[in-house]
Formats: sequence, structure tokens, C-alpha cells
Amino acid sequence: MTTVGILGGGQLARMLALAGAPLGLRFLVLDPAADACAGQVAPLQVGGFADPAALEAFAAEVDVATFDFENVPAEAAQRLAERVPVYPDPRALAVAQDRLAEKRLFRELGIPVPAFAAVDSREGLERALDEVGVPCILKTRRLGYDGKGQFRIRQRGDADAAWAALGAQAGTVGLILEAFVPFDGEISVVAVRGRDGGFRAWPVTCNWHVDGVLSASLAPAPVDAALAEAAVAHARRLAGHLDYVGVFALELFHRDGRLLANEMAPRVHNSGHWTIEGAETSQFENHLRAVLGLPLGSTAMRGHACMLNWVGQMPGAVPVLAEAGGHWHDYGKQARAGRKVGHATLRADDAQALAAALERVGQALDRTEQVAPAVAALRAL
Amino acid sequence: MTTVGILGGGQLARMLALAGAPLGLRFLVLDPAADACAGQVAPLQVGGFADPAALEAFAAEVDVATFDFENVPAEAAQRLAERVPVYPDPRALAVAQDRLAEKRLFRELGIPVPAFAAVDSREGLERALDEVGVPCILKTRRLGYDGKGQFRIRQRGDADAAWAALGAQAGTVGLILEAFVPFDGEISVVAVRGRDGGFRAWPVTCNWHVDGVLSASLAPAPVDAALAEAAVAHARRLAGHLDYVGVFALELFHRDGRLLANEMAPRVHNSGHWTIEGAETSQFENHLRAVLGLPLGSTAMRGHACMLNWVGQMPGAVPVLAEAGGHWHDYGKQARAGRKVGHATLRADDAQALAAALERVGQALDRTEQVAPAVAALRAL
Repeated sequence: MTTVGILGGGQLARMLALAGAPLGLRFLVLDPAADACAGQVAPLQVGGFADPAALEAFAAEVDVATFDFENVPAEAAQRLAERVPVYPDPRALAVAQDRLAEKRLFRELGIPVPAFAAVDSREGLERALDEVGVPCILKTRRLGYDGKGQFRIRQRGDADAAWAALGAQAGTVGLILEAFVPFDGEISVVAVRGRDGGFRAWPVTCNWHVDGVLSASLAPAPVDAALAEAAVAHARRLAGHLDYVGVFALELFHRDGRLLANEMAPRVHNSGHWTIEGAETSQFENHLRAVLGLPLGSTAMRGHACMLNWVGQMPGAVPVLAEAGGHWHDYGKQARAGRKVGHATLRADDAQALAAALERVGQALDRTEQVAPAVAALRAL
Repeated sequence: MTTVGILGGGQLARMLALAGAPLGLRFLVLDPAADACAGQVAPLQVGGFADPAALEAFAAEVDVATFDFENVPAEAAQRLAERVPVYPDPRALAVAQDRLAEKRLFRELGIPVPAFAAVDSREGLERALDEVGVPCILKTRRLGYDGKGQFRIRQRGDADAAWAALGAQAGTVGLILEAFVPFDGEISVVAVRGRDGGFRAWPVTCNWHVDGVLSASLAPAPVDAALAEAAVAHARRLAGHLDYVGVFALELFHRDGRLLANEMAPRVHNSGHWTIEGAETSQFENHLRAVLGLPLGSTAMRGHACMLNWVGQMPGAVPVLAEAGGHWHDYGKQARAGRKVGHATLRADDAQALAAALERVGQALDRTEQVAPAVAALRAL
């Protein structure tokens, strides 16, 4: 019996554990929170990632370890890797944790990125503004997610406010200034790479964010096949360079048929949740297959799928469950503003049938704005 | 947060719990065995079904209860039903627990059955043989499953041996003599009925047994559409009569285009395991939706699916996982002769592709006999 350790006990760990049970896997989840939602479906060890004793106890119980959370301290991941195999490799995690290292790597690999510059002082911010131009976004290099740790600079006069907001972090997690890219759309490549180097990508997904948090994902993304192929090629190159093992997501903007990479997430990804019902093999199962060195499953999808994130609190399930291709995911979390508490996936063989289902759900749940971009994209097909 | 209680903690409870977690459900499983495999994915209460204190403690923790096991003592189910809603109704369970009551009900509802007669003494067996004829099968009325509690009578002279084997149970669980039906094939209807009377059936499944234990299931069953429709109509009538709530299976034989009902299983069923990957909604999720009064999910399937049961011990997973539509289910049980320890489902859009995949898996796992009937059925399409 193989026990897989997961650092972090949120919904990603929860869905990994649910996907892994049929493979005969046992799990142990490490999380600082006693009510971490993965603990409802798998054994939970309550402990901090940076606590050597907790890590030691965790390592003693597991055969292999992985992450539901990319901001595990790099030293903790490294310490764990000295005890048990850890996938993805903590070095890949370290790159993805640092926006500056990540952008530099993208550039090195020929993956186009918006203009960027490191910022380590108030004067450095001015130099970076000269280089990057406005509009742009000042971001923390580390520990940012879901739009946190970011300040938008529309004109040079905003620099003081940006510095007031984030400058104190220049000496801790570091800062990066990135050009603000007007874009036609955001897409992500969710892909998996095996221990043997085998690589598979699910169809490219189109994503819409609200207040920096993913709101809806539509697959396959309604973009040119050539654009999607280029995005997948970038993801393949990146994974190969990092000798990456497991599922990851590469997020990109596109405008006028050109791609610009935004960031990489070294884990199963919110924009891949639709794969649970929409693809032959889900991102969660394929992540585990990769981590365990098992053959990767087919990433073929059927029809069209749209995922709607539930943020803050769960809406009523009935309108979704009443749809023929309606699937519900309640993470078992307490409601809290801004928190991802669940999602729904709607699937249909036909794009217009999916649009109609989304419209009905949007109406019934008073979330017409949330479904609108996906409906419009489907109607335009 | 709704907690669903499940009486019985085997693989059916395990798969129910895995299907219910995304619906935000909590579970409590009651089983006499401390190592019941559902306990790996849901809280387990170790206790006997007939123990009033255990049932009382269980009832106090759950909002609604259901079964993974049809041989829960009827009084225990009834006692539980006085405390919490129980689906299916214990009366439906009672009918399905008694082969004689079941056969009589089938006949009453116009569902064709083989000739049968009750047997309560050695002389009664002779009278039953006059009525039913040979070949026939002497069976216990209750507590039989997977071919246990059965004795085949090929000629009248076998009656003594049959009585020696099972006669002692005439006064306890009771006996029934059933005509042995030569058949072209065995099929099952796996269907779900909601609290509101809504009824949905998955495509009819063709089943092959070895030593009385299900070996392989193929869906859709390669039978005439009219035959499949008639089988579903029988299932619908049966469920309506019993005011059944939840998933059940109706097993039937067919020969020369005629159906003969064999038995009903008042629970999710081994011949419906392919629905996890092969249908829009699995039997496990739809059972829970029915039990909770939620809208039933689509039972539409895509392509063709074949389930292979692993009995005794698990074979190697790699040949199955290497197939594009290969899915693995390890129940986390100890190996033991005759025990169902897992299954695989192979799915393909095309029947011949599925046949080829089955042949590869059969070869790789040295189980060519197990896959042969399904391969032959697919090749004949």
C-alpha cells in the first residue's frame, strides 16, 4: 500500500485524495489548519510546513510527497526531499515561487513575456518604470496569488502609492514591475509530465477572472488552433527544461494572435477542474499517476465544459444538478469572503447546448454576470 | 452539512462515499469489521447491524441512511427507519431479501420468471420437482449471494444430495426450487428512482459470471433494442410498485428474444460500476442524489464500456492504465480467495477499439478467458 503525502490540505489536496482512492492509494495531508477540508476525506496531520518536527513525522509516514500549495517554503520542500521522493522537484517549485526567476526562465526558453524589471528600492522603481513603461503592475516576487500582493500603476504619478502599498516588501519577498498587457483573453495550458518525460496536455482552457480570482473556465478555449498549439509547445518546453514531474498550469494572455506568458503554477490548477467530468482522465488522477511513475491517462476531452467557481459561499446546488451535464463540487469549507468554497462544471456535447445550460444556471442562481463571458464565447462559435 | 449513514462498509460504501464528497456530504459507515474498506475514505463505526446500541449511536449521528449490503436484518433496518429517513424503504429490502417473495412479486407485476416453488420439507422438495421439473436449482430463500447457498439438480436422483446440502436451512432461511433456464445471455438493468418518482435507467448491461461471481460486464448490452426496452420497462414497474428510492439492479436472463427475471438487488450494483467513467452520472452519485431528494443526473453513456472484476487478488495495474480509456479501482482490501478486491473499466468511443484494448489487457494480465466473452460480443457488432 503506497501512502502519498500532500503538503497543504485545501481543495486541491481533497480532490487529489478522492482521485487517488480508486488507485488504491492512501494519503496523509499536512496542513497547519485543523479544519483543512482535505481532512474530511483523508488522514490529516496538523502542523506547520516550516516545523522540522512536523515534517519529520510526516516524512516517516509517506512513500512519496507532493503539493497542493506552491508556497511551501523551499527549504521545507528540500528537507522533505532528503527523506522521500518529492514531485515536482522542489527546484521547480522554487522557480515558480519567484516571479522574477520565472519570467527570466520564460525569456531564456523563448516563451514570450511582457516587459518586466526587478525592483529593490524606490529609486529602482523609477528605473524600472523607465524600462517597462506605463501602465504596469508592481507585484511581490513571492507569495502572491489570486491577485494579492499587486498594485496597478496607471501613470507615473501612481508610483508613490504603489511604493506605499508594497515597498516594505522589497527587502523581504522582493518586487517585480511588469508591463500591463491589454489582452483579448487569458488562457491556460494544464499539462502533465511523467517521470519518464512523457508529456500530455488537456485542451487549452479560456479563463475569466474577477477581482484577481478565477471566475469561469471554458474548454476547449475558443481560440485559433495555431495559438493553442503554440501555448502547448511553450508548456512542453518549460516542463522539459525543469524536468518537471506532475501536473502544472501555464497561464498566458493573448492579443491579436500573439501569446504572452503570465505565470506557471507547479500543481493541479483551478482552470483544470473541468477535467474531472470533461476528460477521460482528470488532472488529479494524472498528477498522481505521474508522481507514482504510472502510465499517464488520456487527456482527451469530449464536447465542451465550463467550470464556474464559487467564491465566498456556496449557491444552491439544484439548478446545476438539474442540468443533464451539471456536476457539483462542494469543498466542505466554511463560507468566507473571497474564499474558494466550491465549483460547478457544466458539460455538453454541443457548444450551444452548453451556452443554454449556462444561461439557465446563471438566471436561477442570480449569477448572469459570471456566466456571461463563457456564454458569449460559446454563442460566437 | 448532511451526514449520510451507510449500513455496510464494503466497496459499494467506499464508492458511494467517494461519489458523495463532491456533493459536500459527510458519511458515517457502520460495519462489524474494523478493517472495512470504506473506512479508508469515510468515518467508520465498528458495530453489528443487529446490535441495538450500535444502531442507536449510528442513528444519532446521521441525517439519512442507506445500504451497501442488502442482507441487513429487516428488523434492524426497520428500527433505524423509526429514527431517521432510510432509503430504499426497508420493505423493499425485505422483498429483495426473500427469493420467494421476490419471484411472487415479479409474477404479480407481469415480469416473466422461471418456474419456481417453495420448499419446506424433503417431501415438499419432491412436490416442487414435480411442478418445476429438471434441471433446476435449489436455493436458500434468504442470505444467498454470489452463487452461495445454491445446489444444482440435474436429474431427480440429485434430490438427496441437494437436501443434504441445504435441507437444514428449510426451517431457518427457507428454500426455493427454481427451474434452471438455459439462456443466451444475462443482462441487468441498473436504474434509479427519485423521491418524486422520477425514474432513469442506464443503458442495459450484459454480464458474465464465473463460479457464480460476476466476472465481466459490457455496456451497452449487445441485445435487440426491443429486448432492452422491455427489461427497462420491467424495472420501472418494479420500482414504481415498491415506491423505491435509490439505485437498484434487475438481473434477467434472455433466450430467443424472451426475458426471464432472475433477481433484484436493492442497492448500487457491481454491473453498474462502469458508470463511474462511462456515464454522465455514476450509479453512486445518482443513488445519493435520489436518497437526498436532489435532481437525478443524466444516465447517458458515451461509447462502449467493459468492466472486469478482480476476484481474489489485484493484478498489475499498468496494462490497464496504459490504455487510453483504462480506469483502475483498487478497493484497498486484503487479498482473499473469492473476494471482490477491485475492478477495471475500459472505455472507448468505438466498439472495435474497446475489443482490441480488452485483448491487450487480457494478454498482458494472463486473463484472456475473462475478457473473451466481451471481446466476442464486441467483434460480432
